[in-house]
Amino acid sequence: MAESWSGLDTSEPDFRPLVVIELAKGTKKETVEWFTERIVDKKSNGGAQLLIKPLVTENGDETIYLVGASHLRLLLGAETVGLVKECNDSSMRTFTYSSRKTFKDFADDNHNFLTVAECQYIIKHELENLRAKDEKMIPGYPQAKLYPGKSIVRRLLTSGVLVQIFPLHDREELKKLRYTWYGRVRVGYQPLDEIRCYFGETIALYFGFLEYFTFALVPMAVIGIPYYVFAWEDYDKYVMFATFNLLWSTAILEVWKRICAVMTYHWGTLLMKRQFEEPRPGFHGALGINPVTGREEPVYSSIKRQLRIYLVSLPFVCLCLYFSLYVMMIYFGLEEWALDYHQENDSHFSSMMLFVPSIIYAVVIEVMNRIYRYAAEFLTSWENHRLESSYQNHLILKVLVFNFLNCFASLFYIAFVLFDMKLLRQSLATLLITSQILNQFAESLLPYWLQKRQKKKMKQRMCTLKTDTDLPLVEQVNLEREMGTYSGTFDDYLELFLQFGYVSLFSCVYPLAAVFAVLNNITEIYSDALKMCRVYKRPFAEPTANIGVWQLAFETMSVISVVTNCILIGMSPQVNALFPDSKTDLILTVALVEHLLLAIKFIMAFVIPDKPRDIQIKLAKLEFESLEALKQQ
Amino acid sequence: MAESWSGLDTSEPDFRPLVVIELAKGTKKETVEWFTERIVDKKSNGGAQLLIKPLVTENGDETIYLVGASHLRLLLGAETVGLVKECNDSSMRTFTYSSRKTFKDFADDNHNFLTVAECQYIIKHELENLRAKDEKMIPGYPQAKLYPGKSIVRRLLTSGVLVQIFPLHDREELKKLRYTWYGRVRVGYQPLDEIRCYFGETIALYFGFLEYFTFALVPMAVIGIPYYVFAWEDYDKYVMFATFNLLWSTAILEVWKRICAVMTYHWGTLLMKRQFEEPRPGFHGALGINPVTGREEPVYSSIKRQLRIYLVSLPFVCLCLYFSLYVMMIYFGLEEWALDYHQENDSHFSSMMLFVPSIIYAVVIEVMNRIYRYAAEFLTSWENHRLESSYQNHLILKVLVFNFLNCFASLFYIAFVLFDMKLLRQSLATLLITSQILNQFAESLLPYWLQKRQKKKMKQRMCTLKTDTDLPLVEQVNLEREMGTYSGTFDDYLELFLQFGYVSLFSCVYPLAAVFAVLNNITEIYSDALKMCRVYKRPFAEPTANIGVWQLAFETMSVISVVTNCILIGMSPQVNALFPDSKTDLILTVALVEHLLLAIKFIMAFVIPDKPRDIQIKLAKLEFESLEALKQQ
Repeated sequence: MAESWSGLDTSEPDFRPLVVIELAKGTKKETVEWFTERIVDKKSNGGAQLLIKPLVTENGDETIYLVGASHLRLLLGAETVGLVKECNDSSMRTFTYSSRKTFKDFADDNHNFLTVAECQYIIKHELENLRAKDEKMIPGYPQAKLYPGKSIVRRLLTSGVLVQIFPLHDREELKKLRYTWYGRVRVGYQPLDEIRCYFGETIALYFGFLEYFTFALVPMAVIGIPYYVFAWEDYDKYVMFATFNLLWSTAILEVWKRICAVMTYHWGTLLMKRQFEEPRPGFHGALGINPVTGREEPVYSSIKRQLRIYLVSLPFVCLCLYFSLYVMMIYFGLEEWALDYHQENDSHFSSMMLFVPSIIYAVVIEVMNRIYRYAAEFLTSWENHRLESSYQNHLILKVLVFNFLNCFASLFYIAFVLFDMKLLRQSLATLLITSQILNQFAESLLPYWLQKRQKKKMKQRMCTLKTDTDLPLVEQVNLEREMGTYSGTFDDYLELFLQFGYVSLFSCVYPLAAVFAVLNNITEIYSDALKMCRVYKRPFAEPTANIGVWQLAFETMSVISVVTNCILIGMSPQVNALFPDSKTDLILTVALVEHLLLAIKFIMAFVIPDKPRDIQIKLAKLEFESLEALKQQ
Repeated sequence: MAESWSGLDTSEPDFRPLVVIELAKGTKKETVEWFTERIVDKKSNGGAQLLIKPLVTENGDETIYLVGASHLRLLLGAETVGLVKECNDSSMRTFTYSSRKTFKDFADDNHNFLTVAECQYIIKHELENLRAKDEKMIPGYPQAKLYPGKSIVRRLLTSGVLVQIFPLHDREELKKLRYTWYGRVRVGYQPLDEIRCYFGETIALYFGFLEYFTFALVPMAVIGIPYYVFAWEDYDKYVMFATFNLLWSTAILEVWKRICAVMTYHWGTLLMKRQFEEPRPGFHGALGINPVTGREEPVYSSIKRQLRIYLVSLPFVCLCLYFSLYVMMIYFGLEEWALDYHQENDSHFSSMMLFVPSIIYAVVIEVMNRIYRYAAEFLTSWENHRLESSYQNHLILKVLVFNFLNCFASLFYIAFVLFDMKLLRQSLATLLITSQILNQFAESLLPYWLQKRQKKKMKQRMCTLKTDTDLPLVEQVNLEREMGTYSGTFDDYLELFLQFGYVSLFSCVYPLAAVFAVLNNITEIYSDALKMCRVYKRPFAEPTANIGVWQLAFETMSVISVVTNCILIGMSPQVNALFPDSKTDLILTVALVEHLLLAIKFIMAFVIPDKPRDIQIKLAKLEFESLEALKQQ
């Protein structure tokens, strides 16, 4: 199939397959020809100027294509996407082809200057920016309309011609990464830079946050243990623990911003200019003119979207929240029934039964969360957001609110309506531990097991076939295309967010929560690493400078936890004993302390700079240089 | 003095004097020659390439120089400072000389393309950027050291050779502006665009904010009047008024951001790139290398500064706050004494005496504020901040905290310690009205009267002299250089900030406060306009995109006012009557309502976008264009 090696770079000696394109079975030949032609066509003709090669699979179908690019093409692409790399003088600068010699480790024959993840990101970007010229439709599919400037790949995806695009794993690299990451038993940091090189910044940042968060919880866990062991229930020790927790949680969130800035500065994403965002794949509307780009593309009235959000989504979310509260009340009925049962016939079985309602409830909210999640995704998609980021924010908000209520409403009810601290402690423990076990199972171990089984099946099938042309690659591609797709860091952050809630909201009642969180997170690092390396397809790298809306979510949680902890302390018998005469004084004191703590939190957040001084100086230096350059022009 | 017209532009037919430089009497001749030589020298020789002309005054001294520039020089300067102007397609773009033809109203012979304020800003910028080459000191002043890159004008100012630099008023324009601004009796908006053209963005934005704020207070004033007239003191009306006030104050602050964005977009400052900030004039330190610019300049350890702030300034401020509270307690002693006196001998005189302590206290805090102000300026200057902006922020913070305590501590004490609502209302009224009258007097009328008197004196002196060379200009310069210097918008914003406190902190006790605020602000606009046009020297224009730290200060005040209003409502007898059995329930309800209101505030602030949609689109369009341009390169 020499004709598929075309474009300017037919002389390229070593075609390195980077990205896999899978077309639907029975895709018309003219479509395939048109599509591959556009991919290899020169940039000046509106092509992507990449290399493409069909992969002959066992049954002779030509539905899978491997995409690569010449070294030069990748360097030019790096300039287009605005990659930021380290220079020889150890400053970070936006890569341009003309200034390539000034970059660290650059040599014309060094093909490792760009990491594989970066190359794959560049190819994805180039493919997505392959735009229709004057085609009115996809050749062979008259119903798949095109208009000048429409992304071809996106239309192919929405019309089902293109099944998927995914980057290939690099087996050698993956093996090395697995070894340094979780292959050997050792105590130490994760190889975040290697993770970033392999999986990109978004995923590396998640693991960085997970690790940071685990370390940050250690002091809370260590201080929490004696409270449990010695059953310290004095007023002053309580208050000390809660105050420590509150200030600590503010401090760790502020310090994270600084650590995140240092990391992303060295990864180059802190400086990377945000590209103009294209409409997300599901976005639809009447053809019009985009006021920003002046290009023809679907437009959808912002007012209609607002109406859908406020008149449909908002009421629906409220209804779900109400339903969730209703389920909670049923749970409390069950709980009461179990208690009655235990009091009537006091036995081992009945004391076991005491835990049953909590466990059932934990399972039910887990199930409800998942159902609601589908509804939220459907609704947010129906709201028809133009940008992927706006879609994500609305989805995250919906899911967050529901999950928060689902996980914590019962605890709030127990704490502030039933005033039952013993039950609170018990429910907290049950919820925390059940959800942790369920999550670890559902998220990593189950898929891992399923995937292993499938791999075995596949291998058996492979062995029966006798093909001789580069079998390992065919095998690898076939294995990987059957693997699940990693749906992003959303669920992972959500899990951490809820855990943070369990730890901080009622920390003074159950100081052991931090201990469980730390233990869970240590295994979480391993199971998430396993998931990334063995269960899922390799995801495309996604440059990012921070954890985005999650920072806000965690900060909000830490504000709410100030309120809950102050109330809990105010309700404790020890504190009540200090104000024997007047409950009013007690409440006023608690309210005063709460406001003081909140004020301290906000002042701390304001006083601690978001970026360390040396990063600030480096950023200022770059800005100064670009201003000077402008002046010299 | 034809030799003083030099440089490339000696052929310039009409020298328009824009900026006045006043040197100290008896400045050595070699210094003057060197300085003027540097000003007219070519850019390529490190000069400023401006025009300069000495002004012969009555006694023949040559201490005053007029600076101007050719039209071409000003256009090139506009490019250097990064001015943003409107294009023919009504978008806003950074001005460059090469693209000058695309800008609206540009013509090679149109000398009004740049406003006079812009020209003066450019000249100021060029003068301040006149840097030492290899001079080791100012010629004639061996003690005034120079080093390569040091701003010559700043060193001349600190060594006292240069007395002042100020822009000249434009009598014709000023007359027109005065007429449209406050010259005729009319109801309507201020001519903000004209103010901006004459005084620059910072001052125009202050007047814009003052106007907006006055309009925004009108609904509160209108709703407040019936409360006073009909003495409505029902629970529900109270709560309604306070709730309306709280949400309204959040809304107006959010909406202001949007209005501000629209204004500064059309003025070009929203898009203007922040220039690299030079050290402020008073900054000193050992000579070192600036890590950002790589230039030699004084450096001062950030740790030393932090130590000065936290070990000296912070304790000093706390001490002052304590002293202020002490004075407050004396005031309450006096108040009690006056009340006793009134009860003993009930007469007209004794009832008048009831107001005396409040008035004395109002005067005392006004005096204390002014003394503290000097101390704060001294301390902040001693902290040795490198940047003017950082100096300003620290100064504003110090002054704000003290002023807040001084103005409101007594009211807090009366409200939440004495629980005396009648006294609170009375004190609030006295404080508000006294401070407004004092301010209007001290700020505008007194200086205006002083200045008028001086002008008369000056005119008499002028008439006795018989000089014939361009007398009007000589007279104008002499008049203006004796005028006071406008010290910036600080005091004006502070006044508004405190007024906002009076209006919002205790709004439900004294709904009439908003009425007084509106009345005060209407006269404030006129007296401030008078002050700007007639009392002070013309200030240099200062481009700005927002009201900076004041936005934060107003927002903080509106958060505090949620707390105070909730407590006040909770304390009112009407609300207390609703919870006859349990004071605890009352307090809990109030706390709940307070937290809900605070949550609503934060959600509102989060949901309302800071920039209107059309401005967002315009900004996105510019960003998109610059990204596209980068790609095309």
